[in-house]
Amino acid sequence: MILHGYWRSSAAWRVRIALNLKGLGAEHRFRHLRRDEQRAPDFLRLNPQGLVPALELADGTVLTQSLAILEYLEETHPAPPLLPADALGRARARAFALAIAAEIHAVQNLRVLNRVKGLGHPQEVANQWAHDTIAEGLAACEAMLARASSAGPFCFGDAPGLAECCLVPQLYNARRFGVELGGLHRLLAAEAACLTLPAFADAAPDRQPDAE
Amino acid sequence: MILHGYWRSSAAWRVRIALNLKGLGAEHRFRHLRRDEQRAPDFLRLNPQGLVPALELADGTVLTQSLAILEYLEETHPAPPLLPADALGRARARAFALAIAAEIHAVQNLRVLNRVKGLGHPQEVANQWAHDTIAEGLAACEAMLARASSAGPFCFGDAPGLAECCLVPQLYNARRFGVELGGLHRLLAAEAACLTLPAFADAAPDRQPDAE
Repeated sequence: MILHGYWRSSAAWRVRIALNLKGLGAEHRFRHLRRDEQRAPDFLRLNPQGLVPALELADGTVLTQSLAILEYLEETHPAPPLLPADALGRARARAFALAIAAEIHAVQNLRVLNRVKGLGHPQEVANQWAHDTIAEGLAACEAMLARASSAGPFCFGDAPGLAECCLVPQLYNARRFGVELGGLHRLLAAEAACLTLPAFADAAPDRQPDAE
Repeated sequence: MILHGYWRSSAAWRVRIALNLKGLGAEHRFRHLRRDEQRAPDFLRLNPQGLVPALELADGTVLTQSLAILEYLEETHPAPPLLPADALGRARARAFALAIAAEIHAVQNLRVLNRVKGLGHPQEVANQWAHDTIAEGLAACEAMLARASSAGPFCFGDAPGLAECCLVPQLYNARRFGVELGGLHRLLAAEAACLTLPAFADAAPDRQPDAE
């Protein structure tokens, strides 16, 4: 498998964590998002959306969208699982992952911040947009975990999975934009538990060869 | 089951379609998004994210995030299926659904357009933001279908599923914002096939009791 990514892309990072958790090797190729390399014709042939990550399978098939890739890895390599064993637990874990991937990250990624700047605003306004989106979204995620009544420290069940693949990159992003995290006790406890694990440590942006 | 929704919410609409496709009945309750009823304390107790849809199960458990709800319905009521039978087909259908739910709809929904207006822009600028987000996103979705080489008219396989639950509401949104759809042949063919089916026709916004 070849994972096309970018060191600081939250979505590519999710897939790096999942591959590590499942013990799956992949060749890593990097597309520099700030140089628009994901819009290059050869990459658009792989992924017409022009987004990382894209996972190229051995036969050349290309999978896109990080959460769809995680579900594919879960189905084709079930152990260790990324999702709880029961349908209700899986629904909660997926809702949490979507609350981050769709409601937070998709609204504060580089493409959207460039759209904000395209309206004539300086970088500081774009940064505030990201800050507010992340702060509101993570507060809702903390409330979701409070209701899920997991024993902790992980979000759902006794091991990290889909939820943590999304949470850890989003908290990194939160700090980049100066979001105050002090009240997010459950989220921070899950993150702290994850960061002790090599699967998460090795997937961190500054450990990637294309890190700047 | 009780589905908390809003007639014109794309995300609630996806769940209405899925319930209909699977022949599942639900009581429908409506939260008026333009009157901020989804931020009322009683609803925030159901869904701390303050978003519709929320699906209340018979025992009071509340599920949120439309795609997580669709996966739950698929797991608990497998027939007829919303996803292809093979892992690769499922990955493609999920990627297509996410390309709409996360990359398009999450970036052009009412909450984000209000954020654009909060930067001091008039409604027309917010509408252009929605227009451009939808136009770019649907063009990428058309390209995804071109590569999936489905025989058509449906996106993946010979029946509508997760992909169409997302596509049909997004095309309605596209028209609201004046997006030119002429070149999106595969998307329009899938939509046309869906609209002949009662499961889709009955889920349409103007068929809901809270439609204005």
